[in-house]
Amino acid sequence: MGELHVLSVLVTGANWGISLGLVQNLLGMPSPPSVGLCSLSGPHGAASEVQNLVSRHRNLVIILLEVTDPSSIKVAAVRVGEHLGALLDNETLEDMTHVYTTNTIWPLLMDQAFLPLLKKVAQGSPGSALSCSRAAIINMSSYTGSITDVYVWEYGQVVSYHCSKAALNMLTKCQSLRYKEDDVLCTALHPGWVQTNMGGSGPHKLPLTVDESMRGMLKVLSSLSEKDTSTFLDWEGKVIPW
Amino acid sequence: MGELHVLSVLVTGANWGISLGLVQNLLGMPSPPSVGLCSLSGPHGAASEVQNLVSRHRNLVIILLEVTDPSSIKVAAVRVGEHLGALLDNETLEDMTHVYTTNTIWPLLMDQAFLPLLKKVAQGSPGSALSCSRAAIINMSSYTGSITDVYVWEYGQVVSYHCSKAALNMLTKCQSLRYKEDDVLCTALHPGWVQTNMGGSGPHKLPLTVDESMRGMLKVLSSLSEKDTSTFLDWEGKVIPW
Repeated sequence: MGELHVLSVLVTGANWGISLGLVQNLLGMPSPPSVGLCSLSGPHGAASEVQNLVSRHRNLVIILLEVTDPSSIKVAAVRVGEHLGALLDNETLEDMTHVYTTNTIWPLLMDQAFLPLLKKVAQGSPGSALSCSRAAIINMSSYTGSITDVYVWEYGQVVSYHCSKAALNMLTKCQSLRYKEDDVLCTALHPGWVQTNMGGSGPHKLPLTVDESMRGMLKVLSSLSEKDTSTFLDWEGKVIPW
Repeated sequence: MGELHVLSVLVTGANWGISLGLVQNLLGMPSPPSVGLCSLSGPHGAASEVQNLVSRHRNLVIILLEVTDPSSIKVAAVRVGEHLGALLDNETLEDMTHVYTTNTIWPLLMDQAFLPLLKKVAQGSPGSALSCSRAAIINMSSYTGSITDVYVWEYGQVVSYHCSKAALNMLTKCQSLRYKEDDVLCTALHPGWVQTNMGGSGPHKLPLTVDESMRGMLKVLSSLSEKDTSTFLDWEGKVIPW
């Protein structure tokens, strides 16, 4: 095993389980780094194990913080011994929560509420082949949700949006696994870069009109079958990697 | 183009842009379905386009709901004309928000706060090769976050958890793209199925002790280089598909 050379490591939630194991192993290395423990919480009794470690390792530093409180995170960063510069990222707790709620949670709640209807319709249809003509959940995703191929990174870099669409893709996958036996088809669809107010502006003219996108998507929807549940497709029916 | 045969379609946020285009195209089909519009909102002026559609299409039904209000979603489902059965999914707005905050948003906020320190350390190191010995963000992910291969689906099916880890993987990818020029390595790591309280219980004995997982992960961490930033690895260094 090649040796790990690090000056310092910050471990969060380090009071028990995997994180505590990581700390113990880091401190047991031939040239142990200084280790900061943040945000201690865990089962009753774990505190004594940490206390035991602290008494034996001078290079272990406890840094308490409340991760739900951004100001406490900043204080902890200063506590680590350096002055904080400007944050590179713009995303805040509020942005992240709001965008996830809109793009991931609402679709889930909607689908949950309407699932009984979809199941009833599917059961009332002859045969068992999946199709949009039978019953389907189509989640409007975006290529920006592809973790494999974040190809529009240079235009946007809105982390909250990327994360929420990746999560929506996961939701689609979960739904496809769960509802297959109910004969409900589940697919994530990317409408293309469409000329709407939301489509953004700038030097790059967006390639698609709303009508072009819709014509493409309707064609795709009409052709979806068994093999397309559990997939991520664009407005022309091309598979997008997760 | 194969024809799409659907009895009814529910379109949310259907007041403008892509959704409005979808509605117009659906209504223009040779055998148009009945279309329900939910959750109308959008730029000023869009309402008149919808009103215009309503006056021309008897099979267009407006269903107002407030997506932030779960009870209003249920009322809308009843309004569509069927009695609601029990919900198959267990996830609620609160579960989804809480799990996402813990697994995705907190890591982002932590990384944001400590990034200036990481950059300073990276800039103070000789050479430009990426490694954990230089500066790194390692996000503790989980195989359950793999959209491609949700292979533990049969054991858990906790949608909120799957979605939050997929989003964490996307966060890792975004960080790797953003911080590469700062010489900070970013990787998502799956610790294996470890015997902790959180690792779950049941008929399947979890295969790894905390120590085994840690020894594996430290070995992986010590070997990470340029080619590993922007990847998703397990405790043995094997690549997991996104």
